[in-house]
Amino acid sequence: MDTAPARGRPRDPAVDERIVRAAVEELAGTGAAAFSLNSVALRAGVAKRSIYSRWPNRETLITAALQSLSVGLAPPRTGTLSGDLDALFDQIAETLSEPRQSILARYAAELSAHPEQYAVFQRDVIDQAMAVIEDALVDARRRGEIRGDAPLPLAAEVFVSAIFGRSGYARHTPSGDFPQMKDGLIALTMNALRADGTPAR
Amino acid sequence: MDTAPARGRPRDPAVDERIVRAAVEELAGTGAAAFSLNSVALRAGVAKRSIYSRWPNRETLITAALQSLSVGLAPPRTGTLSGDLDALFDQIAETLSEPRQSILARYAAELSAHPEQYAVFQRDVIDQAMAVIEDALVDARRRGEIRGDAPLPLAAEVFVSAIFGRSGYARHTPSGDFPQMKDGLIALTMNALRADGTPAR
Repeated sequence: MDTAPARGRPRDPAVDERIVRAAVEELAGTGAAAFSLNSVALRAGVAKRSIYSRWPNRETLITAALQSLSVGLAPPRTGTLSGDLDALFDQIAETLSEPRQSILARYAAELSAHPEQYAVFQRDVIDQAMAVIEDALVDARRRGEIRGDAPLPLAAEVFVSAIFGRSGYARHTPSGDFPQMKDGLIALTMNALRADGTPAR
Repeated sequence: MDTAPARGRPRDPAVDERIVRAAVEELAGTGAAAFSLNSVALRAGVAKRSIYSRWPNRETLITAALQSLSVGLAPPRTGTLSGDLDALFDQIAETLSEPRQSILARYAAELSAHPEQYAVFQRDVIDQAMAVIEDALVDARRRGEIRGDAPLPLAAEVFVSAIFGRSGYARHTPSGDFPQMKDGLIALTMNALRADGTPAR
């Protein structure tokens, strides 16, 4: 009975949004393995059939919740590599605020059990961050700021991993938090890739 | 009744070991939040009182399980930075095999709820990896292989984060798996820190 769609009645977008937000909370607090539609209905203050009338099963609702977290990093195109990396560092660090931070951590823990659901999240959060960094590196190579043979995809991955690592595993390192890491990571990255080999500082 | 210690009877180290191994499995499969002594007793094939006679509560057993995963990375002292980083990359990648990989991922997900338990794991796995890398970098600076003012703690953190990131978040990047990443990451790190600014390759 619960699964009968409410045909003919127009959907209320505010309810859609409330359910998706509740699903995000459930993912961050519980994860995909124990994700419960009953709990989502409670969090959203709706009947379970209101969920089923919109998303036929938990998998489709989880996917919708993950997609709602997509951040849309934008290439800053400041005209210099240091300017671009500075702007992108802030954008990526912002990406790692809650609830994304918790979901990302659970994603790593539950990946092997839920590969299809989290592939969406990987694409929208992690792969996109790496792609937009690589884009900035390609621009810099075109301007002659970095060596022609510099390994750009790897450098982009390392840059993103360093930020993700600091936000997760390395939270309590002596070198402190994000703002303190930023300048050092940018200088390190530029030194690693520079055309003329001169240290950036 | 269950909690009465088996006084006077000598402890069997094989049972200790079986319980700790079962606790590690429970941490990897379930995490600390839902860690259950009943489930550990089942996994180990022992009575619950056999656990309580050794560890007074779940927290002490969890700590013992995490400590059993300590890896003891050793400074390789090959005489060159590239040799040291090559050996340490392999050691750290080996660290990230199961069950450590799963526990590390859960650690990131559950950190805020269980800070004291996981502090042990962070110290024995993550901080130790960073410290031994930094050690190799200090040796290299002494040999004149890298600049005097190179930011060694940050470089060590970025090196470790890149390996952790590849094992977790970035598993499916086009650049592939660990062996394919190793040479590139070492060259990138050396270029970032070199004394004379000449690309390493």
